[in-house]
Amino acid sequence: MEDILNGLKFDANGLIPAIVQDHENGQVLMMAWMNREAVQRTIETQRATFWSRSRQSFWIKGETSGHVQHVKRVSVDCDQDTLLLQVEQVGAACHENFRSCFYRDVSEDGLTVNAERVA
Amino acid sequence: MEDILNGLKFDANGLIPAIVQDHENGQVLMMAWMNREAVQRTIETQRATFWSRSRQSFWIKGETSGHVQHVKRVSVDCDQDTLLLQVEQVGAACHENFRSCFYRDVSEDGLTVNAERVA
Repeated sequence: MEDILNGLKFDANGLIPAIVQDHENGQVLMMAWMNREAVQRTIETQRATFWSRSRQSFWIKGETSGHVQHVKRVSVDCDQDTLLLQVEQVGAACHENFRSCFYRDVSEDGLTVNAERVA
Repeated sequence: MEDILNGLKFDANGLIPAIVQDHENGQVLMMAWMNREAVQRTIETQRATFWSRSRQSFWIKGETSGHVQHVKRVSVDCDQDTLLLQVEQVGAACHENFRSCFYRDVSEDGLTVNAERVA
């Protein structure tokens, strides 16, 4: 584990971005940030755990909402400065109750909602 | 276009992360960074254009390699601080000639290559 963590490139704030994708249908659900310990916790517990930049604390996804992410696979990119998590998402990944945080499409004309809220 | 760009949250360096996904099979190919003008160029030209942090210059993906990304769809997340591009990828997204930059899986035991190089 130490070798893996040492190989990762954290930014000036000690963070690395983690893309979260539905492991079944490939939908990109969200992106959040991890510090070294969040990466370790995520791999060891197989529950997506991030570092909240606004609250400056660990954030186990779904801890309060129940919308947990069971981690099926973790990958790292060529530069080792971005992680990709493939997860089983319970409920909605987005706090606005959309399945994915990317619920708006962008065009030259503006933003268009591309999904409906979950339940 | 100005309204869209004004709505985005760029970081302290004036950058926003852009996740790039294959529009057909959902494979996450890479993540790179855009400044305000790169976002505008990407939307207007439908060719993925990033800001290279190492070279401090615009980087039209595939300009030298031919591995261009034709942008089919751009989405933005709830916080408007991350973009998702769905693209038609010509050849390999990764400079190491893997289709995706995320060609290694991470586990407690270490890294495992999960793909073969393209051609």
